[in-house]
Amino acid sequence: MVESWSFLDTVESNFRPLVVIELAKGTKQETIEWFTKRIVDKKANGGAQLLIKPLVTENGVENIYLVGASHLRLLLGAEAVGLVKECTDNSMRAFTYSSRKTFKHFADDNHNFLTMAECQYIIKHELENLRAKNEKMIPGYPQAKLYPGKSIVRRLLTSGVLVQIFPLHDREELKKLSHSWYGRVKVGYQPLDDIRCYFGETIALYFGFLEYFTFALIPMAVIGIPYYMFAWEDYDKYVMFATFNLLWSTVILEVWKRICAILTYRWGTLLMKRQFEEPRPGFHGVLGINPVTGREEPVYSSIKRQLRIYLVSLPFVCLCLYFSLYVMMIYFDLEQWALDYHQENESNFSSLMLYVPSIIYAIVIEIMNRIYLYAAEFLTSWENHRLESSYQNHLVLKVLVFNFLNCFASLFYIAFVLVDMKLLRQSLATLLITSQILNQFAESLLPYWLQKRYNRRMKKRMCSKKTDMDLSLAEQVNMEKEMGTYLGTFDDYLELFLQFGYVSLFSCVYPLAAVFAVLNNITEIYSDALKMCRVYKRPFAEPTANIGVWQLAFETMSVISVVTNCILIGMSPEVNALFPDSKMDLVLTVALVEHLLLAIKFIMAFVIPDQPKDIQMKLARLEFESLEALKQQVRAFQMQL
Amino acid sequence: MVESWSFLDTVESNFRPLVVIELAKGTKQETIEWFTKRIVDKKANGGAQLLIKPLVTENGVENIYLVGASHLRLLLGAEAVGLVKECTDNSMRAFTYSSRKTFKHFADDNHNFLTMAECQYIIKHELENLRAKNEKMIPGYPQAKLYPGKSIVRRLLTSGVLVQIFPLHDREELKKLSHSWYGRVKVGYQPLDDIRCYFGETIALYFGFLEYFTFALIPMAVIGIPYYMFAWEDYDKYVMFATFNLLWSTVILEVWKRICAILTYRWGTLLMKRQFEEPRPGFHGVLGINPVTGREEPVYSSIKRQLRIYLVSLPFVCLCLYFSLYVMMIYFDLEQWALDYHQENESNFSSLMLYVPSIIYAIVIEIMNRIYLYAAEFLTSWENHRLESSYQNHLVLKVLVFNFLNCFASLFYIAFVLVDMKLLRQSLATLLITSQILNQFAESLLPYWLQKRYNRRMKKRMCSKKTDMDLSLAEQVNMEKEMGTYLGTFDDYLELFLQFGYVSLFSCVYPLAAVFAVLNNITEIYSDALKMCRVYKRPFAEPTANIGVWQLAFETMSVISVVTNCILIGMSPEVNALFPDSKMDLVLTVALVEHLLLAIKFIMAFVIPDQPKDIQMKLARLEFESLEALKQQVRAFQMQL
Repeated sequence: MVESWSFLDTVESNFRPLVVIELAKGTKQETIEWFTKRIVDKKANGGAQLLIKPLVTENGVENIYLVGASHLRLLLGAEAVGLVKECTDNSMRAFTYSSRKTFKHFADDNHNFLTMAECQYIIKHELENLRAKNEKMIPGYPQAKLYPGKSIVRRLLTSGVLVQIFPLHDREELKKLSHSWYGRVKVGYQPLDDIRCYFGETIALYFGFLEYFTFALIPMAVIGIPYYMFAWEDYDKYVMFATFNLLWSTVILEVWKRICAILTYRWGTLLMKRQFEEPRPGFHGVLGINPVTGREEPVYSSIKRQLRIYLVSLPFVCLCLYFSLYVMMIYFDLEQWALDYHQENESNFSSLMLYVPSIIYAIVIEIMNRIYLYAAEFLTSWENHRLESSYQNHLVLKVLVFNFLNCFASLFYIAFVLVDMKLLRQSLATLLITSQILNQFAESLLPYWLQKRYNRRMKKRMCSKKTDMDLSLAEQVNMEKEMGTYLGTFDDYLELFLQFGYVSLFSCVYPLAAVFAVLNNITEIYSDALKMCRVYKRPFAEPTANIGVWQLAFETMSVISVVTNCILIGMSPEVNALFPDSKMDLVLTVALVEHLLLAIKFIMAFVIPDQPKDIQMKLARLEFESLEALKQQVRAFQMQL
Repeated sequence: MVESWSFLDTVESNFRPLVVIELAKGTKQETIEWFTKRIVDKKANGGAQLLIKPLVTENGVENIYLVGASHLRLLLGAEAVGLVKECTDNSMRAFTYSSRKTFKHFADDNHNFLTMAECQYIIKHELENLRAKNEKMIPGYPQAKLYPGKSIVRRLLTSGVLVQIFPLHDREELKKLSHSWYGRVKVGYQPLDDIRCYFGETIALYFGFLEYFTFALIPMAVIGIPYYMFAWEDYDKYVMFATFNLLWSTVILEVWKRICAILTYRWGTLLMKRQFEEPRPGFHGVLGINPVTGREEPVYSSIKRQLRIYLVSLPFVCLCLYFSLYVMMIYFDLEQWALDYHQENESNFSSLMLYVPSIIYAIVIEIMNRIYLYAAEFLTSWENHRLESSYQNHLVLKVLVFNFLNCFASLFYIAFVLVDMKLLRQSLATLLITSQILNQFAESLLPYWLQKRYNRRMKKRMCSKKTDMDLSLAEQVNMEKEMGTYLGTFDDYLELFLQFGYVSLFSCVYPLAAVFAVLNNITEIYSDALKMCRVYKRPFAEPTANIGVWQLAFETMSVISVVTNCILIGMSPEVNALFPDSKMDLVLTVALVEHLLLAIKFIMAFVIPDQPKDIQMKLARLEFESLEALKQQVRAFQMQL
């Protein structure tokens, strides 16, 4: 061992700021001293053994701190978080400090072995795992109680002393990345590996999915175009299109799992061991013994939570669903009114007016979705789930059910109650296009414009005409800390999920939907990229091995779409004409076809392996090696005896 | 360490015979010497370090050997196979020799810490893992090739030198077990824990499932009885029964998963790490480099296997299915003939004759199933799968598809093509009861009787009137080696699977099926127990954590039964009377109800957790501890620096 551990303590010899900590204005001095001491303290004393430095600006010290770490400290942290890296023999293995020489690109003086995003993730992990020893409270804040093992940073956040922790952007890297990502108009893939290095796996996987999904939609769009151009209205062509669509949607979802495995294997997250899940920051309860960890920590009775879920959340969701249906009925009144108006005074204006109710309804849907999301977040947070994963599951379930009904109830009503295919097509088109435009605007362009205006004002205030590259560190930190916080990929996936619904649920009525979806997704890639690079603070990297609950959500949607499409086809006049004598035979045939398609779907999902052969092989090899190593240990032990 | 390793070498000081090895008559002496030397050789020399002793009978040495092992050797073997045992703090942990003192009931002189079945499993594992070093062939048999790493026992088996390896019965334990299991007529549970100790987890789990399934059928049977007694023919009662049946069958399958988790947690197999799967004995190929293990071993091209599957096996299965349908049509001809005969000469005899075609058909079905099973085993073996699990999956798939069609095609035909509910009921009853009687006879009573007759003759030949208990070891071994070999739980599960089909597929037409199933299963428990204890050689214990592919098979059957029952109800005259005007409405309503039931099924399966809360908690606790231990290691390492 060449380095000595004291190297970890040499302050600022090559201090590279990675993470920014912003404390509240007027935080007591004793708190600051205690907190910074805990951060730099040795591991042996229960500290995080990181480096910290106050940010000095023109206005003096402003309770903003920069956190970094020595190279050795980061390597040990990489082992602690279980990072998986590529070895010199091209296999992926969990990094350990003692086996560091076997990893590709490792050299004691190569400070780029870990990407900046990985370093920041390690620092975040170390900060969050900085735990109270025997402190009963945060010094200076007697109301902020602590108990042995409580994460200090989480308590500081919930008590408002700590305003935020965020990783710093790397201006140079960001410029390179944004140039190759969206800087030039080009046909080709996104630089997913670079995105992953800069933003982490969760975000890279979202962009990977967005790109894959767009490519996967292209065949549907290509087949859909002639339907519009030649105004193919005969249903046998629609039947063909729908059948293709149904099988295709199963295939693309299965193939995505394989692609996802390829990506996450390359990134190492497929092999990363799951960390033990700590309680989420907002979780509260009375101190008790946790039966799993055996530690004294807040516990909250599961019965109380169940009561909250079933007596409050469930009725509230039902009420919202009812309200959404009520709004839908108003929309149909409006639609009727517009139709009457058009029939009374036939003009260009009145025929334009026909689209107005749908547009208004689409806007109302978007607004309701957003309001409901806040309510759902509030309620789920109030349900007081102990784990982030449980919180997320309950939130996703609430949001998906409402969004599905809110967006598609009117279409179901038009299709199966009013049985008006013309209105369905028109309504579908208006809803889809309006929601896409609204989303693009609200999600990316508006924040971008606000941010740009703010930046310009900031720079003007600083009375300088420097470009972004020339900003001093203090200026950069001050600029970034005011940027919005990226709240995760939830909204983005939800948008894709609803789009998938528009495309597949009624695909045999409106084949052009896929075309709009493709066009939207191409701009979506650019606007989302812009949003990540320019509008928001850099988010912490989050390792992930798959898109989680969204895979299930997409698969459920594709099952529902089999049912809807079969019914739509059964209702078409052309198919009806095939069974002139007996409607019974028609319905039975449709039901039979539906069941066959569903059976084929399930068999296909079962038969297509979730991982490509070579990944399976590599995983088997790793498992074999670890079992062999275990056997060797047992054998060595036996020989010692 | 009190014991010295040399203790392992002290031969026969307290030799307890556990496993019998029977070599072929006329095996060359050099082969025997080489093989026994490898078995007793030290681990360091690549041996199995077991104890072996030839069996001496009145006729001298007969190429039968008894294998045992020292206590310490067995404990080290328990660690190698990854046995999970209960600790003094009531948690379940993988046994390691170094932590042996923390396990319940462990004492250096307690030779019952490992059950006899566990000891035999360990010895089997050690024998199978006895691998060739640099031998090119088995000494004395140049045609039996070896290569480094090849399992010697498997090669000896495939080349016919080794006739069989089987574990010895423990006469005393067996007597105790059989007394508490089936010795007295009693109402109550089976001694599952004792069965597991004696026969291992796979068999105990089968009996656990059989018992659970029987109890689960009782509510259905109880509800079914009044239908028979009061001859309830109105369909609204059948609808109630069918609905209950459908939801019930979902619930019982989900609850079984939980009970299975409770059992296998207690037995330690839920936590047992999966061992790396070696190639199955029958696998052959040309020597090549295995990409997973990196070892030189036989490899077989996956394309060749695919060709065999799709060009030979698949057409063969289709042909069999066609033949089965052809036989079915003959059955219908017979049925028609019997009906004509009955109408021409109405008598008691002719009305009895009405049942004859069904009985004949039931017997033919059983015979075809059995012949097909042989063909499927031959074909799957010829497909040359590398792993036992892959072989099993292909075999189960082949067998299930054929058995399903063979048993139920005629019922489907009667129900949905002939639409003759009276014939359906009669046919269902005859098929179910005949197949149950045939199975009980062929599976247990016939072999039992044959075995008994053989035993009597054996004893007569030995000219003694000893009871089983007084037999000498040599006599016991000679008796047991002639007993039949239990071929695993496949047949038993298949029988239950088909029974589940008879009960649930057409439950709304013949509610009494559940009654017959319960009655059959009660006798099945006794006859299967008898079969295990008296008819067959003791099988090696096989650790398992669940019933594997059968869970999926039963769940699929319950999905299919939702569809069939909905259609049957829709066809009933009473339900038809509810929709006098429009058959369309009827069909649509039935389809809607069916989809709703399926949706409820999937949601229930999703919502009911697969493991009870306390098992989840215990597993979480173990995971937490292992992660904590890992963290401690990293921390200790960091402090050293």
